[in-house]
Amino acid sequence: MLHQAVDVNCDLGEGFGHWSLGETPDIDLLPLISSANIATGFHAGDPTRMDYTVQHATRLGIGLGAHPGYRDLVGFGRRFLDARADELVNDVLYQLGALSEFAGRHGGSLQHVKLHGALYMHAAADEDFATLLIDTLRRVRPDLYVYCMAGSALHRAAEASGHPAVREFYADRDYGRDGSIVFRRQIAAPDPLALADKVVRACRDGMVTTVDGEDIPIAFDSICFHSDTPGALAIGRTIRASLQRHGIRIAPLMDVVHPRTPEDKE
Amino acid sequence: MLHQAVDVNCDLGEGFGHWSLGETPDIDLLPLISSANIATGFHAGDPTRMDYTVQHATRLGIGLGAHPGYRDLVGFGRRFLDARADELVNDVLYQLGALSEFAGRHGGSLQHVKLHGALYMHAAADEDFATLLIDTLRRVRPDLYVYCMAGSALHRAAEASGHPAVREFYADRDYGRDGSIVFRRQIAAPDPLALADKVVRACRDGMVTTVDGEDIPIAFDSICFHSDTPGALAIGRTIRASLQRHGIRIAPLMDVVHPRTPEDKE
Amino acid sequence: MLHQAVDVNCDLGEGFGHWSLGETPDIDLLPLISSANIATGFHAGDPTRMDYTVQHATRLGIGLGAHPGYRDLVGFGRRFLDARADELVNDVLYQLGALSEFAGRHGGSLQHVKLHGALYMHAAADEDFATLLIDTLRRVRPDLYVYCMAGSALHRAAEASGHPAVREFYADRDYGRDGSIVFRRQIAAPDPLALADKVVRACRDGMVTTVDGEDIPIAFDSICFHSDTPGALAIGRTIRASLQRHGIRIAPLMDVVHPRTPEDKE
Amino acid sequence: MLHQAVDVNCDLGEGFGHWSLGETPDIDLLPLISSANIATGFHAGDPTRMDYTVQHATRLGIGLGAHPGYRDLVGFGRRFLDARADELVNDVLYQLGALSEFAGRHGGSLQHVKLHGALYMHAAADEDFATLLIDTLRRVRPDLYVYCMAGSALHRAAEASGHPAVREFYADRDYGRDGSIVFRRQIAAPDPLALADKVVRACRDGMVTTVDGEDIPIAFDSICFHSDTPGALAIGRTIRASLQRHGIRIAPLMDVVHPRTPEDKE
Repeated sequence: MLHQAVDVNCDLGEGFGHWSLGETPDIDLLPLISSANIATGFHAGDPTRMDYTVQHATRLGIGLGAHPGYRDLVGFGRRFLDARADELVNDVLYQLGALSEFAGRHGGSLQHVKLHGALYMHAAADEDFATLLIDTLRRVRPDLYVYCMAGSALHRAAEASGHPAVREFYADRDYGRDGSIVFRRQIAAPDPLALADKVVRACRDGMVTTVDGEDIPIAFDSICFHSDTPGALAIGRTIRASLQRHGIRIAPLMDVVHPRTPEDKE
Repeated sequence: MLHQAVDVNCDLGEGFGHWSLGETPDIDLLPLISSANIATGFHAGDPTRMDYTVQHATRLGIGLGAHPGYRDLVGFGRRFLDARADELVNDVLYQLGALSEFAGRHGGSLQHVKLHGALYMHAAADEDFATLLIDTLRRVRPDLYVYCMAGSALHRAAEASGHPAVREFYADRDYGRDGSIVFRRQIAAPDPLALADKVVRACRDGMVTTVDGEDIPIAFDSICFHSDTPGALAIGRTIRASLQRHGIRIAPLMDVVHPRTPEDKE
Repeated sequence: MLHQAVDVNCDLGEGFGHWSLGETPDIDLLPLISSANIATGFHAGDPTRMDYTVQHATRLGIGLGAHPGYRDLVGFGRRFLDARADELVNDVLYQLGALSEFAGRHGGSLQHVKLHGALYMHAAADEDFATLLIDTLRRVRPDLYVYCMAGSALHRAAEASGHPAVREFYADRDYGRDGSIVFRRQIAAPDPLALADKVVRACRDGMVTTVDGEDIPIAFDSICFHSDTPGALAIGRTIRASLQRHGIRIAPLMDVVHPRTPEDKE
Repeated sequence: MLHQAVDVNCDLGEGFGHWSLGETPDIDLLPLISSANIATGFHAGDPTRMDYTVQHATRLGIGLGAHPGYRDLVGFGRRFLDARADELVNDVLYQLGALSEFAGRHGGSLQHVKLHGALYMHAAADEDFATLLIDTLRRVRPDLYVYCMAGSALHRAAEASGHPAVREFYADRDYGRDGSIVFRRQIAAPDPLALADKVVRACRDGMVTTVDGEDIPIAFDSICFHSDTPGALAIGRTIRASLQRHGIRIAPLMDVVHPRTPEDKE
């Protein structure tokens, strides 16, 4: 058993004003996870929704994460936007600060940041943006965990500077031969049991089967599923039950990835 | 001489992306003031501009203030919007948190919040919003000064709860008989010397002449002028020179209005 | 029987980008109505969604209406905004023109305009805006039907200038003693059969029962129900079936309210 | 003399709400041009500004063009956005329809469409978008001139389908060896006389000097200068005066590029 405890994260608060996302209310997904990525207003999310999500996540002891995206409401932050690295870093800081205020209001504080959609992929591929973002966070938020794809530019930048990073395993995404995720327009709801088996195997053996049928090793600290995947509630529940049945605890991120402090090393 | 030192505040960063406001670059106005109200994205302002303005204000030791408005870019936050009090408080917290992140980045912290335009008037008139805002700030930002109109609902709410408030004197606005400001569509640029005389008299005697020609007493802690008033640079310079000539110091807010701590009272 | 044929209208296309509104896809509601009010981008709606809705409405021979709202996505156009009458008229023209282009693309043309939410109420109460809107439409779109509340400022302005107006009966709203609609936060889904009975009675007898239990006369040309009322699909189907059972035809607006042409008058 | 008459076009209405662009009011540039590209709300422009610009352009007999951009106010439509071709075509139709309504209001109609900024470059490079846009315009607006870069994907698509196209000569942009424009961050205002000489030479000889100092042939139907180039007013006036001095008429587009009707071919 590689992982006896694992963090489970999910994107929440991805509605806007009158609109909600997905068929499952966030309030039903919260008890299934240990870390919440909360939309911060640029691709989705609005102040009142952020306040609500933070309030309930805090009440349940769930780690609070900012989930900033491109300023692209109509495209839900899923379309590449060729912005300068410094503009994007400012966009991230703006959104992160906004969420932080709601965290403070409800007696919590930010645990992590996870970029959304095409901005996540932007940071995974663009060295300049990844480096500038990490350098900036290193100074202004040195304890803020950055969720990322293992081996991506963002991950490498965090590793290089010693900034705390969290590598993700994507329960409801397919893997390519190189360990990257393969995007497909989702047509049918995936089978929750198949996803749960995939997650348990990754936790137990550190292996995943690619779209080509090959087995590859996979390293991660947190499991991600998406609130807008069809059947999200069943997926979350089935993953949770399967992990428990296999003795793998869904635990606060801090218990899973503890920061490397001098005391720890003794 | 009533005031030997006075705070001078001005709205800055009120452009958006490619667009700037007024004929004077903010960088030229900064040296003339002691407190900056920085637009936070809803009526004006964008993350890159906020970062820039905060950086230069911090460098000059100017007090940083969030300047949140209604979510109304096209109307520049000047049109009343009948939003719920809790929505508006969330909008304010969101913007305030965003600016706070840039303050932290540049080694500073927020000194104050000043609502913009029609939202300022909303809080001046609406007891529910004023009270909810003050109650919320009291808990999450107990040291954050709230700029307001003397005698307004917001001022009364701050007084009632003991939250630190800063009363403003509006150099480039006209006063009505009851001490409220009278809005007029500005046609010509005002005479900088006339405004400076008005300011000096207010500081020295605590009096202002209304649009009806009457003299009324006026109490305040900070002098405000607007960066988009025609001739803003000349106005700012003339006010500054006149104050200095009369021995009135433009001082950091903290020196002008010191918080009522137990030590102070001894 | 007062009405042997009646128009049925519904708001459609009220999603934005990734988000849809209500539990029922628009495509299922279209066959139940004769006139569609299509959101035009300011409170909801985006170009791709407008294109899609217009395409399917045109295919089914449904009358196309622009459904412009305030520029307030986060508030879904339901919060009063104190904009100038001329600004609002320009906002309406902008949205109306945008929809018209999609109508043309699919071989149709605009039949009507119906304002949305708080803008609808604005035009119902504000003489200046109502008059300027009607005067403008009179010149640029003299044949465009304007949906309105009977007796409202907009209705009176249309009557006064001879602009074609369509009075609505609101199937899923409650009536006050003066014939105005009483807004309530909807908690439970209304009973479709009760709504259908209310509609049939209005068509047959021209009467409706108010929230105070009183019967009042009601004059109208079109029946409106809302796609985001819980149970909208059942409501639409039940109204349709009830009308048919009572021999009342759901008919194109043109068959119900024919324009006063010289030929008609002979 | 290759050109005895030439069209001159300029982007106008590129402010938003309270903000204007450039140092010169549009009203001063209008008398210098024969075709106006009017911003339509996505990268800049708002309904009231569109109405104003259309009104004055129509009054002066200037050809009305829609100037649609990406939905990116903060980036002024200058950042590449990886949207689908069909989304972009819908965005263009939406904006074009909106402007058309204002044209109709003031007794005019649309003469042309010119894409803005990064969307212009997108259509210049992307065959799929260029083809879909031309195919769509071919059906819905067969007479609407499309402004484009000679030899670009958009130009080729228009040529291939017989849709009316207008090739531009960029007075205030530098040319590369292959006839494409070379973007540079403008630091100083260009010399109006140098630009006017460049324009006159292009009109007389069909030649332009590239950034490498080489002379290349250049084919065009319209001369473009930008309202936000520093010194725009002087540039426009100097070009106009130089053209007149050389006997080249600034003429309505229709006089310069007449549509290929059967009658013309006889």
